[in-house]
Amino acid sequence: MKKLLLQLDSNRVPSAFDEVVAHDGGADAVMQRGGVTEGDVRDLMYGCIFTRGPKDLRNTAVFIGGNDMSVGEKLLAAAQKAVFGPFRVSMMLDSNGSNTTAVAAVVKIERAVRDVRGRKVLVTAGTGPVGLRAAGLLAKAGAHVTITSRRDEEGERARSNIQSRFGGDVAMVCMRNASEAAHVLDAVRPEILLNTGPAGVLLVPRDAWSKRQGLVVACDLNAVPPLGIEGIEVNDDAKGRDDVTTFGAIGVGGFKMKVHKACIARLFERNDALLDAESIAELAQGLQA
Amino acid sequence: MKKLLLQLDSNRVPSAFDEVVAHDGGADAVMQRGGVTEGDVRDLMYGCIFTRGPKDLRNTAVFIGGNDMSVGEKLLAAAQKAVFGPFRVSMMLDSNGSNTTAVAAVVKIERAVRDVRGRKVLVTAGTGPVGLRAAGLLAKAGAHVTITSRRDEEGERARSNIQSRFGGDVAMVCMRNASEAAHVLDAVRPEILLNTGPAGVLLVPRDAWSKRQGLVVACDLNAVPPLGIEGIEVNDDAKGRDDVTTFGAIGVGGFKMKVHKACIARLFERNDALLDAESIAELAQGLQA
Amino acid sequence: MKKLLLQLDSNRVPSAFDEVVAHDGGADAVMQRGGVTEGDVRDLMYGCIFTRGPKDLRNTAVFIGGNDMSVGEKLLAAAQKAVFGPFRVSMMLDSNGSNTTAVAAVVKIERAVRDVRGRKVLVTAGTGPVGLRAAGLLAKAGAHVTITSRRDEEGERARSNIQSRFGGDVAMVCMRNASEAAHVLDAVRPEILLNTGPAGVLLVPRDAWSKRQGLVVACDLNAVPPLGIEGIEVNDDAKGRDDVTTFGAIGVGGFKMKVHKACIARLFERNDALLDAESIAELAQGLQA
Repeated sequence: MKKLLLQLDSNRVPSAFDEVVAHDGGADAVMQRGGVTEGDVRDLMYGCIFTRGPKDLRNTAVFIGGNDMSVGEKLLAAAQKAVFGPFRVSMMLDSNGSNTTAVAAVVKIERAVRDVRGRKVLVTAGTGPVGLRAAGLLAKAGAHVTITSRRDEEGERARSNIQSRFGGDVAMVCMRNASEAAHVLDAVRPEILLNTGPAGVLLVPRDAWSKRQGLVVACDLNAVPPLGIEGIEVNDDAKGRDDVTTFGAIGVGGFKMKVHKACIARLFERNDALLDAESIAELAQGLQA
Repeated sequence: MKKLLLQLDSNRVPSAFDEVVAHDGGADAVMQRGGVTEGDVRDLMYGCIFTRGPKDLRNTAVFIGGNDMSVGEKLLAAAQKAVFGPFRVSMMLDSNGSNTTAVAAVVKIERAVRDVRGRKVLVTAGTGPVGLRAAGLLAKAGAHVTITSRRDEEGERARSNIQSRFGGDVAMVCMRNASEAAHVLDAVRPEILLNTGPAGVLLVPRDAWSKRQGLVVACDLNAVPPLGIEGIEVNDDAKGRDDVTTFGAIGVGGFKMKVHKACIARLFERNDALLDAESIAELAQGLQA
Repeated sequence: MKKLLLQLDSNRVPSAFDEVVAHDGGADAVMQRGGVTEGDVRDLMYGCIFTRGPKDLRNTAVFIGGNDMSVGEKLLAAAQKAVFGPFRVSMMLDSNGSNTTAVAAVVKIERAVRDVRGRKVLVTAGTGPVGLRAAGLLAKAGAHVTITSRRDEEGERARSNIQSRFGGDVAMVCMRNASEAAHVLDAVRPEILLNTGPAGVLLVPRDAWSKRQGLVVACDLNAVPPLGIEGIEVNDDAKGRDDVTTFGAIGVGGFKMKVHKACIARLFERNDALLDAESIAELAQGLQA
């Protein structure tokens, strides 16, 4: 019996990234759907749960993606609502790579500092899918997290979402651009610096972070030059730079791929797995980074 | 050479149900297309018939689905118009599971009563895809069929469509809701009662059918509580209840899946199979229900 | 590792033709996307190049199709812009079968006349995807090419596009319909006549071409009656008719399929192949026509 992955994507044109990884993670065929809205989900889920016997349903699974995290969360909720009793299939949420990328970065950081509890963390541009998940996982693990946003309102909304979803200690400061970075780092005095800002945007100049008292780890998830944290290189993977352990987007990316593929494989081991931030983080703990 | 199934779906987001069954029925790959209109069909069919030699064309087939039966019929007509001479592929119409579900129910009923010729049949809410096909097949087999509809005009249109498509004896009575069921059953005095109404809508209260003189079989295709015929359970499969043989949606559903998969397999045995209500019914006769 | 072909189609409903040939050409799975615009391409390409290690990237490739050649060219340009360094995958452009069909016809013609250099060629209705590519390849090979168009402006635009893309000697004459064919052939005095006009439209009556002084080859790519060059039959494959060597759409079509499939196979031999008109022509030279 073939392992079938239903890829529900909120984007009009479904992600090629997610479809490739679905294949490489062990799906025999991918049933991709684009432009999926909440209203489409119930019938698509019925198509999953009513076509194979309960004992065979671990060979069908659902992956939810797309650029918009909040839409992804709604699709996941609708999918969970459609299943019942033995009629259920495993599901995974990873809008824009949010969970797998965030988990990979957080695990790398945790292994570098041993324990994030009580540590001050600054997540620059922490309002996107990856930033939201990374900040949440770090806060939940006991770190004191501060996210930055270009706009107060958007930042406060993100901060509040993270706190209600993950709990823990989360603050927000406004940082409009790279010229304000030194000032923000002076105020927050982070031990861990994580950039989740957009591709090709420099947010933290080298002067703002290198040789800064107390900074232990700096991780930049922007892969497209100019990078987000000046001086870090994309291939950095626990590289020592000015007494700071640094990670670049590709240094983290290899582990992200490993986590993502392991998640796909996990979906087909049972018919009731639910892979979201916390469960993906747990799964990643068992993998070699 | 791979067995390729082109899934033409009139819905914007193509059915997951049909794609899963396509895989399980033997297709090596499914080429699914959503939002398909009549105007799209010719070139899609040319893509099927002009890409492999006539002797290999039995490895390509077309499945037509979507919620709307009348659109499905138009897509099938357009597909038939595009093929010619040795340049043809097998095709199947099953909008919303209409044919396979109707056939499964009708075969179950026929096996319970031996012969439907001359029998009075009442199909409640018989204006949907499944009701239209089931009523037609029963009328064609010689039963005296009455369908109900909430609205006179819609009911008459459905009745007329069934008669012109399948022939036989088809009547229609208006039945607005469950409170009118006893009255309708008094008038029609059915030996066979089949509910094809919407999910979660009770149409025939227990008092209206149980221990009713002459009623032999009652079959309810609604799988979502409240069920359509009160007192029948979804798993009923030739269950005896108050001297009536009853069938529920899951009791019929297992056979429907078997029919559907056998149809997919049949499509790839030759390059000119046409699977619509009658031919699917014929195929189902050879299967163990 | 599966060979994955990302099929980017500018049409709303992606081509079935291209997907079937992708499978038959060696792709293990086809990731088809419809309604693709320039703006969608970058992220789709990132999904290709960032999901597998550089050494494995020859197992991922991109096919660009759709009815509109100029959109196809833009999608290809956008795809090329997205790849860099070792992060690249092979790509092929074949909007509406333009390149593979044109190449197949041109190779057939070249083998019939040995050398097209200095030969006068008339391409009727040469403004569509196939005509543009065939005229360009013939001009580049040294033929004196004249295309016809129903409208002066459109014809001049096409002529200018061909010349700037392929170089060589390209002229245009207006030919509104079949009644003007004899006059146009009198003026151009072609040694090679190629019709790339629409399906079911006769453009060159028999009197206009048969036994015409100097005409050596006539090739008609219209497969739907009435054919474009009266007197040629679809299965003609170097058939002698009135001292002219003739080719019909199916006579060319078999070789077109061979070229198309060989292109798909080539895509997966390395991760930096670029298959457009010239490189497809080169590849076809090595195949038996």
